[in-house]
Amino acid sequence: MDEFSFIQSIKQQTYHQTSLVKGIGDDAAVFRFSNEDIVTAVDTFVDGIHFSKATMDPYYIGYRALAANLSDLAAMGANPAFYLVSIVIPENWLMEEITAIFNGMKELATTYNTDIIGGDTVSGKELCLSITVIGYTKKGMARYRSDARPGDIMFVTGNVGDSQAGFHILTEEAEASYRNSDYFIKRHIMPSPRVEFAQGLSGISRVALNDISDGIASEANEIAEASHVTIYIDDSMVPVSSTYEQFPYELQHKWKYYGGEDFELIGTVSEDNWEEIMQIATNLNLKVTKIGYVDTDKRAGVYLNRNNKIEKILKKGYNHLR
Amino acid sequence: MDEFSFIQSIKQQTYHQTSLVKGIGDDAAVFRFSNEDIVTAVDTFVDGIHFSKATMDPYYIGYRALAANLSDLAAMGANPAFYLVSIVIPENWLMEEITAIFNGMKELATTYNTDIIGGDTVSGKELCLSITVIGYTKKGMARYRSDARPGDIMFVTGNVGDSQAGFHILTEEAEASYRNSDYFIKRHIMPSPRVEFAQGLSGISRVALNDISDGIASEANEIAEASHVTIYIDDSMVPVSSTYEQFPYELQHKWKYYGGEDFELIGTVSEDNWEEIMQIATNLNLKVTKIGYVDTDKRAGVYLNRNNKIEKILKKGYNHLR
Repeated sequence: MDEFSFIQSIKQQTYHQTSLVKGIGDDAAVFRFSNEDIVTAVDTFVDGIHFSKATMDPYYIGYRALAANLSDLAAMGANPAFYLVSIVIPENWLMEEITAIFNGMKELATTYNTDIIGGDTVSGKELCLSITVIGYTKKGMARYRSDARPGDIMFVTGNVGDSQAGFHILTEEAEASYRNSDYFIKRHIMPSPRVEFAQGLSGISRVALNDISDGIASEANEIAEASHVTIYIDDSMVPVSSTYEQFPYELQHKWKYYGGEDFELIGTVSEDNWEEIMQIATNLNLKVTKIGYVDTDKRAGVYLNRNNKIEKILKKGYNHLR
Repeated sequence: MDEFSFIQSIKQQTYHQTSLVKGIGDDAAVFRFSNEDIVTAVDTFVDGIHFSKATMDPYYIGYRALAANLSDLAAMGANPAFYLVSIVIPENWLMEEITAIFNGMKELATTYNTDIIGGDTVSGKELCLSITVIGYTKKGMARYRSDARPGDIMFVTGNVGDSQAGFHILTEEAEASYRNSDYFIKRHIMPSPRVEFAQGLSGISRVALNDISDGIASEANEIAEASHVTIYIDDSMVPVSSTYEQFPYELQHKWKYYGGEDFELIGTVSEDNWEEIMQIATNLNLKVTKIGYVDTDKRAGVYLNRNNKIEKILKKGYNHLR
């Protein structure tokens, strides 16, 4: 059983709580109290798998972990409000390092007026950080992967591939030989969750959103599946940073589509709203790029036009348990 | 730095979110939307520290972990609604065992109409289960440790010490030599969170509540500290099961006050409400026992009358990081 089938196996077919709007199956769950939809998600980071002290200071381990969680809230169009942190601390970590992890989270949290309201601290053999985030939207305004419609424009915020390029530089110990290495490393260790952009969309009635944790291929496929549509992406339109081309072409391609951890947002919106999206992005000084379009589900899945050849691209993100 | 000072060090002095009612410092956090107070907590369980396959089937590992979390909600007077499960899975655990953990949680969750709405599944070196629970109360009706007042009666639900007695039987491999060993083992592997009792108290305006995860000594001290009162407990009134006396006296004493994991509720209430509490307990067929009383903070802390000697009892629950 792989990770995805396992999650399917534990997903309830029916729910008892009438306040539930969305259970397992999107970036976060949503439940409703009065006029507010409350959005919550949990993400876990394990030493040696999601991070390593060898390549990242504890401060950034915390910063990046919370960024990944806030990115889930952004992908739901939610305003972040609270977080809870559960941490397993092994003997070979110093208390200063643990404090640094929390300081990293705190710096990012403060930017978004997000409060730490609980957690658990236990001992164990390997460092493991589990963050629960809670946010909210106005009733009915959460953004789902299932909201893409034929005719929509597919867009992405920022650039993609940078985070993996930064990780490559950190792990290959080849920092000196790349231009702009500080930029790429920063994109890896201090990703920017696109909270303001997601909040800016609140006037648009329908937007499908997903955040790039596993790579465009995986995220676009999740939208295609959940919305029962076909998505076409044009490789020449996928935005990369100005010095991204210095890396070997095959790595560029791999990082863009299968690398992930950019924590940019990928989404679809009606053509009628495209100008408004561009305006929101301009106001935030954020690049938003059209990279493709949505068609009916007659072919199903995600297709990439690369050098005038159409290839089907599949989910290939990191799959635990396999 | 021990666990408690560490938690103090990460606690925010001020909060940004005006919807926050209670941050770090009780069994769970509370925030308010309209007329509902939403209550949330997270608890983490690590293989070899909180449980072991050697003494407990995976099904009960799941059951007990969720019970501990629902007990936190009960201690807040909250109705359970949702849970999210983050699990770190090492290679030496079979998928059948993981599925059994989730089935154990599901059985208990179904009893309380509680839905699993999210989680994370990652690989790692040691099994680690992190559960976030979400519940709710009517506005202003969450139960805090800080609500004990001089003159209150201190009470406890059920019996205490049973869970540690069960653990003793399981780990000493001496099952055959004790009477009622099945009862004690069941109390350890399938504890009953006192959700219905906590819900039953909803008509009483003020109740201080805490759940027994670390032992009466620790929980009563938390109430005394948070409420700035002195608490007197009479050892002869602390309820134990009918065959509890078969264990060595020193173990009985240790398990009652410092053992914990009974997941009973300990609390205080005005004498005026005592009869109502007894009636609620009778209706639920649950034993609730007066074990002491609350005085002003002139001595501070918790005092135990044992064999007509008064001794001060301190927090001595399991302290991670020390």
